[in-house]
Amino acid sequence: MLKRLSKDIKKLNTKKKTTIKDIANVLNISTAAVSKALHNDSRISKKTKKAVRQVAKNLNYQPNHLASALRKGKSNLVGVIVPRTNSNFFSSVIQNIEEVLNKEGYNIIITQSNESYKKECNNIDTLLFTQVDGIIASMANETIDLEFYEKVKAKGIPLILFDRGENDLNVDYIGINDYESSHVIVEHLVKQGRKRIAHIGGYKHTRIFNNRIRGYVDALKKHHLPLDNELLIESSLTIEDGRQKMEQLLKLKNRPDAVYIASDYAALGALQLLNELQIKVPEDIALVGFGNEPFTAMVTPSITSINQHSEEIGKQAALTFLNYKNKKTIKQTLNKIILDAELVVRESSAPK
Amino acid sequence: MLKRLSKDIKKLNTKKKTTIKDIANVLNISTAAVSKALHNDSRISKKTKKAVRQVAKNLNYQPNHLASALRKGKSNLVGVIVPRTNSNFFSSVIQNIEEVLNKEGYNIIITQSNESYKKECNNIDTLLFTQVDGIIASMANETIDLEFYEKVKAKGIPLILFDRGENDLNVDYIGINDYESSHVIVEHLVKQGRKRIAHIGGYKHTRIFNNRIRGYVDALKKHHLPLDNELLIESSLTIEDGRQKMEQLLKLKNRPDAVYIASDYAALGALQLLNELQIKVPEDIALVGFGNEPFTAMVTPSITSINQHSEEIGKQAALTFLNYKNKKTIKQTLNKIILDAELVVRESSAPK
Repeated sequence: MLKRLSKDIKKLNTKKKTTIKDIANVLNISTAAVSKALHNDSRISKKTKKAVRQVAKNLNYQPNHLASALRKGKSNLVGVIVPRTNSNFFSSVIQNIEEVLNKEGYNIIITQSNESYKKECNNIDTLLFTQVDGIIASMANETIDLEFYEKVKAKGIPLILFDRGENDLNVDYIGINDYESSHVIVEHLVKQGRKRIAHIGGYKHTRIFNNRIRGYVDALKKHHLPLDNELLIESSLTIEDGRQKMEQLLKLKNRPDAVYIASDYAALGALQLLNELQIKVPEDIALVGFGNEPFTAMVTPSITSINQHSEEIGKQAALTFLNYKNKKTIKQTLNKIILDAELVVRESSAPK
Repeated sequence: MLKRLSKDIKKLNTKKKTTIKDIANVLNISTAAVSKALHNDSRISKKTKKAVRQVAKNLNYQPNHLASALRKGKSNLVGVIVPRTNSNFFSSVIQNIEEVLNKEGYNIIITQSNESYKKECNNIDTLLFTQVDGIIASMANETIDLEFYEKVKAKGIPLILFDRGENDLNVDYIGINDYESSHVIVEHLVKQGRKRIAHIGGYKHTRIFNNRIRGYVDALKKHHLPLDNELLIESSLTIEDGRQKMEQLLKLKNRPDAVYIASDYAALGALQLLNELQIKVPEDIALVGFGNEPFTAMVTPSITSINQHSEEIGKQAALTFLNYKNKKTIKQTLNKIILDAELVVRESSAPK
């Protein structure tokens, strides 16, 4: 008997996953009896319970928490979607979301879109598939169609956007005041005596970048500086593209004396090109980036940038999610938290 | 009738999730009939099918893919565990895993341990919960107990470790030759005329750091340099700790003339301190980091480092997983891929 059992177990061990059916087969009892034994039901004898537990252990049986989550409609998981993890801003937001949610018994799973709409749709499907209790997301550059996010809303799963949001979706949002940030930057450059300020911005269809562009245009007006269309360029804002767009600006007959770039990465690419060409920063051209990535303080010259308050954004996003869970009802008023940006002045825009 | 239906639907819409039971209730038919209708069963009339589909649409019913994955034992998800995403090495590995797996129809979900054993255990539970088809992981600094990884193995889920692996687990592993890397570094420093080479290493219980320490000790012997215990320090290898351990070395009566640090982050902390104290790098003290993080090329002086081949590691990890899936059997031989390290010489160890 024991020998046969051991053989049966051996056979089963090569299978992918042990079910209560496997346990029932080994002991030649019903699955209902196994289930009752595992739940310590009084209708099952102590002897049978002991045998069931022993076989369950031998077969590495793991109760299926997921099936249980499916029944209860609660997984204690929160999904996070970011354009990329390889950015201090997004990593820091994730870190802060995680700290707040871990304390409340939630784990997070992270997916990245790599700025691709198609990947973002896959990410949403993946997170819905894993039965997350909520989604906290920052949208990809490419995303215009909101259908997939509407699907999350329609399912009644709390959806919180940060940084890259979208007014049309009408969901909770945490970000910084991008429009005002541009004003702060232009004002700083004007104070440094700059008169021809260019802007390498993101794509206009992304709300935050559009707000930065609007802020730039309005701030120029405010300071009575003419808006020159050749000084306003849309970009994917990668290191490479920052370099390329700076090259484009350098080819102009009338070069800018300052460039405000909507991402530190693109600003880094621009700076590398300027350093290579021995164009002096900030003397010949002042540079301002956006995001306050740690490398902005490490490079030479260090790059002036906007602190986006990633810690606060992460915390508020997590708290907004918890607010849903604690109220246990669909909230009526949306959280729209807009934080004030802070300019961190460094060597690239202010001579020592 | 339509009015009542609309009211019922409204009520249901505030619920978390639509089930076939909800559809059955609205139409006053059995759940079996709804299920058959949704699967286009010939036993169900066209009229009923149309009504079921309409109500399913109105209620935002989504067929439960997860339940289906539970039945089929296949989720098309691969879980990735990293100590942190905020590192170019880990981000780049993830990126390359993702590129290979996406092409084969797999999506990945990422979790981070923040170097905590407890968090890593939670991550494994989370990934098992989401029914991943495989796990690709790099272990946390804290992890010594392998019980949780044994659980993954016991469940027959392919487990592939990279960078931070563990021989005792006896699973597939992809990494670089850490022992040899230390030899390459020491040899380079000896060629630069350095005679008193310190090592700020990771914790010995982590295999890769242990190998780097062993390599350092053996390379010193090879070059007939005495091993001085005060020059070998274990560290958590963060920026802050790199700074602190460098401070410790500077307090020595007999200071080192070169420091090999097992992580670029810790090397950055050390460099920042040396720059502040106006100790010349490399003239007074040469520095070598590990990981070839992009910032090593950006700082002044730029930091000599070891390229860990993150692209190749990511690709090979993904291919190892696919190998399991394509064979559809439990593989007999393990993949152990050890890549040769490459030293990227920069200003911090070689005067211009």
